[in-house]
Amino acid sequence: MAMKTQTKNRQFRLKTRPSGRVSADNFSFAEEALPDLGDNEVLIRNVYLSLDPTNRIWMSEMDQYMPPVALGEVMRGLGIGKVERSNNPQYKEGDYVSGLVGWQDYFVPKGEQAFGLTVLPNIPGVPLQAMAGAAGMTGWTAYFGLIEVGKPKEGETLVVSAAAGAVGSVVGQLGKLLGLRVVGIAGGPEKCKWLTQDLGFDAAIDYKSASWKQDLKVATANGVDINFENVGGEIMNAVYERLNLHARMVVCGLIAGYNDNDDSKTRVSLAPTLMKRLRIEGIIVSDFASKIPEATTQLAQWIAAGKIKHRETIVEGLENAPEVLNKMFDGTNIGKLLIKVSEP
Amino acid sequence: MAMKTQTKNRQFRLKTRPSGRVSADNFSFAEEALPDLGDNEVLIRNVYLSLDPTNRIWMSEMDQYMPPVALGEVMRGLGIGKVERSNNPQYKEGDYVSGLVGWQDYFVPKGEQAFGLTVLPNIPGVPLQAMAGAAGMTGWTAYFGLIEVGKPKEGETLVVSAAAGAVGSVVGQLGKLLGLRVVGIAGGPEKCKWLTQDLGFDAAIDYKSASWKQDLKVATANGVDINFENVGGEIMNAVYERLNLHARMVVCGLIAGYNDNDDSKTRVSLAPTLMKRLRIEGIIVSDFASKIPEATTQLAQWIAAGKIKHRETIVEGLENAPEVLNKMFDGTNIGKLLIKVSEP
Repeated sequence: MAMKTQTKNRQFRLKTRPSGRVSADNFSFAEEALPDLGDNEVLIRNVYLSLDPTNRIWMSEMDQYMPPVALGEVMRGLGIGKVERSNNPQYKEGDYVSGLVGWQDYFVPKGEQAFGLTVLPNIPGVPLQAMAGAAGMTGWTAYFGLIEVGKPKEGETLVVSAAAGAVGSVVGQLGKLLGLRVVGIAGGPEKCKWLTQDLGFDAAIDYKSASWKQDLKVATANGVDINFENVGGEIMNAVYERLNLHARMVVCGLIAGYNDNDDSKTRVSLAPTLMKRLRIEGIIVSDFASKIPEATTQLAQWIAAGKIKHRETIVEGLENAPEVLNKMFDGTNIGKLLIKVSEP
Repeated sequence: MAMKTQTKNRQFRLKTRPSGRVSADNFSFAEEALPDLGDNEVLIRNVYLSLDPTNRIWMSEMDQYMPPVALGEVMRGLGIGKVERSNNPQYKEGDYVSGLVGWQDYFVPKGEQAFGLTVLPNIPGVPLQAMAGAAGMTGWTAYFGLIEVGKPKEGETLVVSAAAGAVGSVVGQLGKLLGLRVVGIAGGPEKCKWLTQDLGFDAAIDYKSASWKQDLKVATANGVDINFENVGGEIMNAVYERLNLHARMVVCGLIAGYNDNDDSKTRVSLAPTLMKRLRIEGIIVSDFASKIPEATTQLAQWIAAGKIKHRETIVEGLENAPEVLNKMFDGTNIGKLLIKVSEP
């Protein structure tokens, strides 16, 4: 297949660390020349960029689980790309790969940048964009967080915050598949309707409603056994008060606290942890690397069978990445948020 | 053996809930007539009352793991007594028993008050007061908290707060027996010297020293893998900052927060829990009831062999119980704090 030879690559490089909302001004966005391919190198054309709360963490200097992106570096980001040219027998032209492809049009991994770069299988019934979401990192996070950390038992009550988000929507559906009562917390009637009518949640709490705390009490009349926490702040504290004896809190995200350095939105009192013998535990997907094939197979089966529904909000154009990232923080996104960089 | 027939029983009944420091004024302390023994009943003469931080919890209306003591009720308390008379074949005259004997001279359990009342074995090398401490509830708490919740691995670093207290001093010694590096936090040079010179702790941090935070850093140069937390407040937060990837925080006590209703001393940010995938978990000894025989046997062996040293601060006189309880909150107590109610 004849490919037009590309020589230019647009790249977002981090210029300043955002304070609060992310803006394009925090980046330089310039065309740079694509390097010639050396031995064993591969040219990847980015197709979908996955926008995740962790992008915001990586832009900041907060204590985090990987080093922050250094000023001047290409912005770190997960995504899916297509192999355009390859001098490496591991990658064939036309393969789709996923990994830390970065906020750029093309990715030529150097040395350890290739770490974690995986050729995607073609799974019937699972479209490419789902491989960036429900069957990819997003789904794995939900799967390991709920199953390995939450250790659910049939009949228990699960509350998931940011329930209409990429991870939350999968967590809730997994909860239903595992026989739990599932209550989602999301912002606005459209999201809540999606959760209960399309995804099968038992109840959805609209945190923008004046009665949301009361609604949460009603929906969790028998208390809460697992809190899958994506948000922090007032929502986390309201669920925390509802936790039962020996309940588990899976700390997957604290997005309410990422835009500022004030930790008031991430704090809880440990008195209930003592009195009710709670378990609070953090989850980062990389801790479960050895089980990713198991999770992918299981999630893909459920997706192909229609048992896990996936939904993407896809915005076209690499140039929009910084501004679109804010959608996760202002609550205007449903499902998995992707930037479409080029045609699959 | 001829026993003088007792007819009077001094009892502390909770009159008002303390705010801050506990005082005798929070109780009525009156002689009441001993009831005649009915069928299956037993008269227990209290010998040692165990004073524990949980007494202070039970006096309060904070959310807790048992109902608070109701106003007008005999103050709830653990202890050891001797069977004086018995109409119950389970208990023989002269037996020592342990359980919730209450703040009184004599205990005649009615109905479910006998729940948990256990005849103590006579274990060579383990004196009676140790059965109220290192080989009793105190030791079990240390044992289950460290082993079952902390899940220590040889070579890890353990930090225990209130390390010269009843639970903390056993936790640290268990840590050494399990091959951990053990750092204790305690108030004042006498306690710190006891920890390192007598109990074999690797280091002891005097939190009354101006340099204690720096001392903690030096003593935990490789970070902290397990925090056995008894205190809360500034000490807890200083250790929390030192926790390593996948560290565990065993929440056994938050004594800094018991004397007031302000929860600022029990709060932590969950951001590090997420980023470092920490596990924070509460421990109450009753959750491990089925394993108490195992723990008692193991602890008694170690005590008899001199591998776990025990120390008691014994104050004579039931009448002193309310005032003496404050010793645990003002840091003037070493080891297990007991009230001697009568001669063994």
